[in-house]
This record gives sequence, structure tokens and C-alpha cells, in this order.
Amino acid sequence: MKNNLNNILEDSLNYKIGETLDELKSIKKLDEIFSKRKDQLYREKDEGKKVYGRFCVFVPTEIICAADAIPVGLCGGKESTIPSAEEDLPRNICPLIKSSYGFKKDKACPYFEASDVIVGETTCDGKKKMFEHMAELSEMYVMHLPHFKDERSYELWLKEVYDFKDYVEKFTGNKITEEKLKEAIDEENEERMLSHKLYELRSQIPTPITGKDALKIFQRSFLLDIKDRLAILKEVISELEERVKNGEGYTGKRILVAGCPMVAGNTKIVDIIEEVGGLVVGEETCTGTRKFDNLVNGYTIDDLAERYFKINCASAFKNDSRIERIKELVKEQNADGVVYYTLQYCHTFNVEGALIEKELKNLGIPIIRIETDYSESDKEQIKTRLEAFVEMI
Amino acid sequence: MKNNLNNILEDSLNYKIGETLDELKSIKKLDEIFSKRKDQLYREKDEGKKVYGRFCVFVPTEIICAADAIPVGLCGGKESTIPSAEEDLPRNICPLIKSSYGFKKDKACPYFEASDVIVGETTCDGKKKMFEHMAELSEMYVMHLPHFKDERSYELWLKEVYDFKDYVEKFTGNKITEEKLKEAIDEENEERMLSHKLYELRSQIPTPITGKDALKIFQRSFLLDIKDRLAILKEVISELEERVKNGEGYTGKRILVAGCPMVAGNTKIVDIIEEVGGLVVGEETCTGTRKFDNLVNGYTIDDLAERYFKINCASAFKNDSRIERIKELVKEQNADGVVYYTLQYCHTFNVEGALIEKELKNLGIPIIRIETDYSESDKEQIKTRLEAFVEMI
Ligand code: SF4
Ligand code: SF4
Ligand code: SF4
Ligand code: SF4
Repeated sequence: MKNNLNNILEDSLNYKIGETLDELKSIKKLDEIFSKRKDQLYREKDEGKKVYGRFCVFVPTEIICAADAIPVGLCGGKESTIPSAEEDLPRNICPLIKSSYGFKKDKACPYFEASDVIVGETTCDGKKKMFEHMAELSEMYVMHLPHFKDERSYELWLKEVYDFKDYVEKFTGNKITEEKLKEAIDEENEERMLSHKLYELRSQIPTPITGKDALKIFQRSFLLDIKDRLAILKEVISELEERVKNGEGYTGKRILVAGCPMVAGNTKIVDIIEEVGGLVVGEETCTGTRKFDNLVNGYTIDDLAERYFKINCASAFKNDSRIERIKELVKEQNADGVVYYTLQYCHTFNVEGALIEKELKNLGIPIIRIETDYSESDKEQIKTRLEAFVEMI
Repeated sequence: MKNNLNNILEDSLNYKIGETLDELKSIKKLDEIFSKRKDQLYREKDEGKKVYGRFCVFVPTEIICAADAIPVGLCGGKESTIPSAEEDLPRNICPLIKSSYGFKKDKACPYFEASDVIVGETTCDGKKKMFEHMAELSEMYVMHLPHFKDERSYELWLKEVYDFKDYVEKFTGNKITEEKLKEAIDEENEERMLSHKLYELRSQIPTPITGKDALKIFQRSFLLDIKDRLAILKEVISELEERVKNGEGYTGKRILVAGCPMVAGNTKIVDIIEEVGGLVVGEETCTGTRKFDNLVNGYTIDDLAERYFKINCASAFKNDSRIERIKELVKEQNADGVVYYTLQYCHTFNVEGALIEKELKNLGIPIIRIETDYSESDKEQIKTRLEAFVEMI
């Protein structure tokens, strides 16, 4: 077993093509900027800016930015705050929901504490109902995201986006001008295009960046200032382009991760995959393509609503576009197989997973489904399963 | 312990006020009619009537009846079909969803097999996504029930109800005339009023009917023909009125059950409550008030949509009217305490339960929360907890 594992590792990402790969300078810089983010955020707050905490990539951040306010991601990825959440919430709901609620309850997260408003959405049962509890701890605003993807649902969503704009304007006291909105859309679109560029680079063989580093970039992008995000992404890309030019990079069984969000604090699955000789080359998650797929095609609130409505989340009923996107991504990223990842008790991703597994298997695309939480207890078992999967594909 | 239990039983429903209570004749008749229902249904099918299977009390049955079609309830309340469902669905979703799916998959339920269409709705994550699987086994129609209870959501719902009418007309080939609709509404309203009357009688001390018998009436009403339902209810009521007049009935700690549906096959909680000396005097469930609260006030599709939109289900975000209704029911039914009942992994009822527990406790209303599935394994433990609860209140 041990030997076998070592063999796998030998021609995997622990060994580079060409010479030893140095640490990316841009990732070091990301760490540096991130370490100062809290102070920067509180300074901006002191200057009178409002902070909007949000959970889900469905919340249109451009509206927040266009009102000179600051969006921050609040999803909890840590086990530590779960016990306190379980005093109010059932144990058998998804760890992301419990962790998030616990962070607020325990005042354990500076970004939660900085948030003047927490913006929720009706994407899943657990979150929707958790917000009713969180409303006792914070100012809350909940957007109604409908279940269907049809015209009727879009009309409702569009009105919700307009309402959100009104709310943000009122709450910040800042008018969202056409100019401000255009600027915010341009910036977010630029990040989306850069993220696509990053995925293109990850699609190369060898791949110039580990899944671990890529995940770090995406996780932190939920917390950083947009200007910093753009700067870092550009540096990452230029370093990676250099590597690709030199044929430098990582090899290994190429894995697309698809499923639930992997939010700051939670790197469990990517860590294990890369420990056992897999190489994560893309994520069909909210810290991956769900964050950046589709540009906003225009500069109106309608254009904004339209882009966000297209997000492929399992929360939608009859979600055919999600499975199509997964199949596409397998091709685009030159993936050898799919790790379908669900957080425990996430019904939507879990139930949809069975349909996706069936479809991919029919197409001969290897897939393994892993359901887990934030604890350490199942790590060895998952490792064994993923080891076998990576060896097999 | 044993002695203690016997003491409780002594002044509870096992001992009647006045002389021994005979079995209700109307319940015997219900059993008789029910035993013939399958044949009756298949005969009606042979005559060309379409059968509409449905899961949830949000589906407006009047539309089905007005098109000369037959509504039947399909929710599964049995453990037996769960293993087969778990081949396709995750184990950790609610037993009602798994049992229902299993009944269809195994062709184990004559009502499922009789159904020409299965009508679903987007009330909870698990059911919503299960319907995507069920669509591979049956003709399906899914209604979009929005998350919120606001005006905007109502508008969407209204359109969904109109669409459903069009669909039913097309599928049956029968036009829903004003006259037919009026007839159907009158009949369902009559059943609602009779159910209210039944609840009024249950509110009496002593209570003329056990919770077990009352549950049987409601569970079967999802399967019987409307004419039979009305006839049975009338007989039940006249027998109970007689009992009340004579001061006959059951005593015991009076319990309101609130929470998830207790559908045919599942009598677990009511059975245990009445075993330990409690007396169930009302159900804030879909086999209780959620089925019959609020009349349809008029004869149009709009009136229909409005009535159904008012249903107090935990699936709605900001569901204040539900807690109000529970408080009201405690008073109306002269309940001594509330058993808040959730099916395992039902996030909406479970998370809302914590808020309701808090509010009732603040008001000094005893409440115990029980989460369970359809298995036998936790019965003893639940019995011990309910025994203590009943003793305490
Ligand atoms: S998985 Fe869906 S609900 Fe969850 S954060 Fe992503 S888009 Fe939102
Ligand atoms: S992972 Fe699933 S259950 Fe958890 S918050 Fe996201 S959608 Fe909801
Ligand atoms: S509990 Fe809610 S979703 Fe379930 S059947 Fe009743 S009304 Fe429908
Ligand atoms: S009991 Fe809860 S989880 Fe089960 S079908 Fe009803 S609403 Fe859904």
C-alpha cells in the first residue's frame, strides 16, 4: 500500500516536469495582502463605508460596490464554531450552515463582525431557515431566489435584484449611478475573464498550478478588495504563463471537483486528492466556475440580474445546464475524472449527484461521490477511497 | 416506573368517563369503505377518469375534481420501501420522501400505479430534487411554490395555479367549467367545515375521540372519494356529538402534535403518545389543520390560489403565521402541551422548531421536540421521553 502510494506520488504533482518549481511569488503576495485585509477593512469602515456580508454567489456584488460599500464572503469552513451553533440548530444540517451561524454567534469572525448587514438568499432549506435565527443576531436582508429557471422565475428574480438595489441605496445613503454601476460591472467582469484565463492555464498539461494554490486564490477573493483581487490574479497569470511557456508544471491524474462550495477554512477534499496523487485542475463549485462563469453583458440592473440568474446551482429544479457544464469542464480542463463533492446533509447537491453520476458513467467519465463534513474523523476513509479512484482512472 | 406508567394510564384514555366507550360505528364504516376503495378507483379509471397523484396539501385538488379527474394522496409512510429508494437517493433525506419514491420504484402502491400523473411541488429540497428522479419513472407535473409569503410570490403562485388548470384540462380533455369548479369548491369547503367541527368536538373535555381514530380519518381522507369523505365525516360528527351530550369521552394529558405530516402507514408518534397516557386533541400537520384551515372564499381560480397560498408550512421563509396558529390551536383545543414532531432530515420543520420551542416556552406552554423516522429502533427511547413529558405537564 505504502509503496503503491509512493509510486503514484512519483509521477504526480510532488514531482515537477523539468526542474523543481519554486513557490509562486504571487501566492506569497496574496498571503501578505490577505494578512493586512482585516485592518484595511476596518479602516474603510471607519471612513464610513458599509460592509455587506453575503453567503452565496447569487448575491450581485456589483450593486454593493456601486454604492461604495464593501462585499465580504461569510461562509464558514471551520469545525470549531459548530458546537455552539448546534445549541440552536439541528445537528443534521450542512456544516457550512452551522459553521457560519456559529461564527456569528461566537463573534469569532472579524468579517462577520464588520458586516453592517448580512445578505441571505433562499437557495436551500437549511440556509433559508437558519437566516430566521440569524435575524436575531444581526441586521439581515434576504433575497428571494426562486426554485425554477423559467421566465416566470426570472421575472421575480429581476424584481428582487431591483429591490436589493433600492435597499442598498437606502442603507448606504449612496445613489447607485450609471457610472458607478458600469465601473463595478467592468471590474467584476475583468475578474471573471481573468479567472477564465486562469482556468485555461490550468487546462494545460503539465498544469502550472496546484489545486491547493488555485483554491486559496478563489477562497481569498471572497474577502479581498476588488483592486487587490485583480492585481493578484494578473500576477498569478503572468507567472503561470511563464511556466507554461517553459513547459513547467505538475502532472498527475487530473481531477475536476464538482459540487458544494469549499469555503475559507475548508480545503479538505483538495488536500486529500493532491495527497494521493491527483491533481485538481478545476472546480465546478462556488469557489470555482459558479463564481465566474458568464459575464454581465451590459450595464443595467437587468443585465446584472440575467447573469446571476444563470448560475448553475443544484438548488434549482430541473438543472440540466449544470450537468452540461460539468461535461464541458471535463473536456475543457482535460480532466481524467470527477470527484463529486457534497457536504453532509446538503440534499440538493446530494440528490442531483446521483443523476450526474449516472450520466457521466454512461459517457465513460470516471466519477466518485464523496460526502463529508468538516471533521477529521472520516479523513482516512476518504483517503483510501480517493487513492483507489486515482489509481483506477 | 412500571407502576408509575400504570397510574398515568388509569386516569387517561384507557379509562373512559362514564361507561365503557364502544367502538365508533363510523370508524368501522370507514374501514369498510376504505377496503373497497382500490376496486372503486380502478373501476373509475376503466370508465376513463384520470388519476392525479399528489404529495402535498398545496396542490389544489378542486382543479382536479372539476375536470372529472381523481386526486389521490401518495405520501409514503412505510419503512418497507426505503431500502430500494436508497439505491437512488441519499440515505440522509426524510423518510417520507424515500418511502414515497420507493413505493413508485417497487410498484408497491396501487394508488401510485393508478396515477396517470404525479403532481409535485417545490416545498423542500429533498422532494424537489427527488422529483427529478421520479420523472424517469412516471409522467410528472411540478408546481412552483415560491419561498416567500409576499405579494410578489403570490403573483407567481397564482400563475402556477392557472397553468395547472390548463394542464389538467389538456391532460384530461375535460373543460373546467364555472359550474364544475363551484361544485368542487363547495365539496372541499364542506369537508373543511366538517373537519373544523370535528376539531371543535375534540376540544371538549372529555374528548369524544382518540387521536388514533382521528388520525385514521384524516389519513384515509387523502385516498377516498369526496362523497365518501363527506358521508363518513358526518357520521363521525353525529356520533361524537352524542358522546359529548352524554359527557362521554377520554381524558388524559391533552397534546397538540405540531410538525411534519403523519401520512398513511405512519402512526408512530400518536400511538406512543396515547400509550403513555397522553391524548392527542389536535394536529398542526398536513393530516390536520394544514389540510383544512381556511375556506376558499369564492368560486374563481384566484380564490382557490389565495386559499392554498395561506397554508402554514415551515417551507416558507418568515413563517410567523405558523407559530401564531400553533399558539391559537393550543388554546382552541385546550391542550396541555405540544409535541413538536419532525421527520429526520426535514430541515425546514427542524430549524423552525427551535424558534417555536423558544416562543412557547416563553409563554409557559410545555413543548417537547421529537425527531424520528419510520423505524422501530428509537421507539423505546421516544416512549421514555414522552412518558416523562406527559407526567411533567
Ligand atoms: S452552492 Fe448554490 S446555494 Fe450554495 S453558495 Fe453556491 S450558488 Fe449559493
Ligand atoms: S452546501 Fe448545500 S446545504 Fe450547505 S449551504 Fe450550500 S446549498 Fe445549503
Ligand atoms: S409539510 Fe409542507 S411541504 Fe410537506 S406536505 Fe405539508 S404543506 Fe406540503
Ligand atoms: S417532512 Fe419535511 S423533508 Fe419530508 S417531505 Fe415533508 S417538508 Fe420535505
